[in-house]
Amino acid sequence: MKVQQIHEFGAPDVFKIAEVEKSEPGSDQIRVRQMATSVNPVDIKIRQMGPSFAPALPPVLGCDVAGVVDAVGKNVSRFRTGDEVYGCAAGVIGRGGSYGEYVVVDAELMANKPRTLGWRETAALPLVTITAWEALVDRCHVKPGDHVLIHGGAGGVGHIAIQIAKAQGAYVATTVSTDEKAEIARRCGADEIIRYRDELVADYVKRLTDGRGFDVVFDAAGGSDIAKSFEAARVRGQVATITTAFTADLSPMHGKSLTLNAVLMLATMLRGASPEHNGEILTKAAVLADAKRLKPVLDEQRFGLSDVGAAHTRLESGNAVGKVVVDIADGLDNA
Amino acid sequence: MKVQQIHEFGAPDVFKIAEVEKSEPGSDQIRVRQMATSVNPVDIKIRQMGPSFAPALPPVLGCDVAGVVDAVGKNVSRFRTGDEVYGCAAGVIGRGGSYGEYVVVDAELMANKPRTLGWRETAALPLVTITAWEALVDRCHVKPGDHVLIHGGAGGVGHIAIQIAKAQGAYVATTVSTDEKAEIARRCGADEIIRYRDELVADYVKRLTDGRGFDVVFDAAGGSDIAKSFEAARVRGQVATITTAFTADLSPMHGKSLTLNAVLMLATMLRGASPEHNGEILTKAAVLADAKRLKPVLDEQRFGLSDVGAAHTRLESGNAVGKVVVDIADGLDNA
Repeated sequence: MKVQQIHEFGAPDVFKIAEVEKSEPGSDQIRVRQMATSVNPVDIKIRQMGPSFAPALPPVLGCDVAGVVDAVGKNVSRFRTGDEVYGCAAGVIGRGGSYGEYVVVDAELMANKPRTLGWRETAALPLVTITAWEALVDRCHVKPGDHVLIHGGAGGVGHIAIQIAKAQGAYVATTVSTDEKAEIARRCGADEIIRYRDELVADYVKRLTDGRGFDVVFDAAGGSDIAKSFEAARVRGQVATITTAFTADLSPMHGKSLTLNAVLMLATMLRGASPEHNGEILTKAAVLADAKRLKPVLDEQRFGLSDVGAAHTRLESGNAVGKVVVDIADGLDNA
Repeated sequence: MKVQQIHEFGAPDVFKIAEVEKSEPGSDQIRVRQMATSVNPVDIKIRQMGPSFAPALPPVLGCDVAGVVDAVGKNVSRFRTGDEVYGCAAGVIGRGGSYGEYVVVDAELMANKPRTLGWRETAALPLVTITAWEALVDRCHVKPGDHVLIHGGAGGVGHIAIQIAKAQGAYVATTVSTDEKAEIARRCGADEIIRYRDELVADYVKRLTDGRGFDVVFDAAGGSDIAKSFEAARVRGQVATITTAFTADLSPMHGKSLTLNAVLMLATMLRGASPEHNGEILTKAAVLADAKRLKPVLDEQRFGLSDVGAAHTRLESGNAVGKVVVDIADGLDNA
């Protein structure tokens, strides 16, 4: 089977197509014949050899799995050959990289594919959906009527976060920089769009929460300006961020008695554990998708397995609007 | 009635006894004839004019109220004249300072006194109990079987935190510096004592949690070495701190997907609201106290209302062992 490997860390041109043997699934694993995958910022960081948890060379990177079950380990009862599934593997840490025609993954990470989404849409969901779900549902406990502010509402995690917060019954405001991004956020159901370049935090907190502050603030953009999130939160509010590394003045947290949640969906897998919770989240997400409450936005450019480097370049450019998806099977629909 | 006022911010000698008129309680307030109060670090910070929320001069400082209801506002049905009550007022922000013979407070802040504790013990509880409860129960959701680490287990907040964590069913380890403090922590029910000067974080995490990390780490000492708390926490663990102002490298939070809770029990009152939840916490704390599961340790030195400056000096010296209490009524028992 074909895979994309990297033999050195660096620029997008480090990817090389290779022909390798298919692996057999372990007792608790399944093998998936992939239809599509998508690119996430963590893939780019690992390719550039940022984080310390980068796998040994030459790894197959890629996290998002979407395809058809092709072989099943002896302890696995939830899936059979032919099932259509999706999930988040951990190619970035050397376990089940998704930039290939087949991938072997722990069955508990996986869920049945949303029936009503196409393969490319399905491939766009896993990592960003689990991240947004962890931040908003598991950690910040968003509930009906909460005022939720999402920074970066047109981004990969952000546009899914808007939809999950809405599905939880929240009133959702989001910050964006451009008209095009405002349009995406609106399509995802945001109740209020904030043009953060034009409006001070104090002003939109007054306008949208009567000065009280947001119950939950989620920095889904991964920016490091956490001070703005602290400023926008109410007393005893919840702040969440996917920002990877930063130093911050935490004094404002104390005065408001705030909670700060650092969110890294890979944290458990980094320590060798395989969180079955991830499969449960994606099962619930498929229900939301089939109820027309969750749908990813896809970037207009299309890539194949041989173009993974170009797909990385597209995401790095900052010009992608929606998720950057890589087709693995031939002839997929746009959705 | 007599009160201790300060006419300037500064050293402990700024306190001056004054004779003032008793205030009448508002519709939702009660007036309490005080038996005792206690000194908390926040009183010292305000006296020195640290935080920006210091009240206008000359305020009556002091937060902990313990005494007998003397007058009742017209909307108050929970209390009658003669009831024995305790609670945390907010003298540090200019509302109901407790360094005086009488204090007028919002009724919803108050609870019935524990039947089995003496007045001095009762006066030692409110601020530290609400703080520890908020940190461990409300924010970190400590549950039976959790591994909880408390930094500063012999301190004002810490020794109460040990008892609350134990009452929640947790396994409790605590860090102390001296034999005398170890003895206090043990008396409060700590399962494990860590001499933090002699043992590395990695070593006690291995020894006490099999390397997994603590479910909850509470820095009740208010130190700024939050890096040690991050190191001791498990993946997706909860960290809480009462530290007021610090800048921290949050990268370790991301790698473990941690939650950090800044805890300031006065945060709501600082914004003009009066949290009825505080009265509920103290009602539950009284039940624990009467079940012999919650009891403050009192410093051996005793002070009267005329000695509030000396009581501050005692707490500032770092030599107090247990809470520093100020007797207001004459002839109180030791307890």
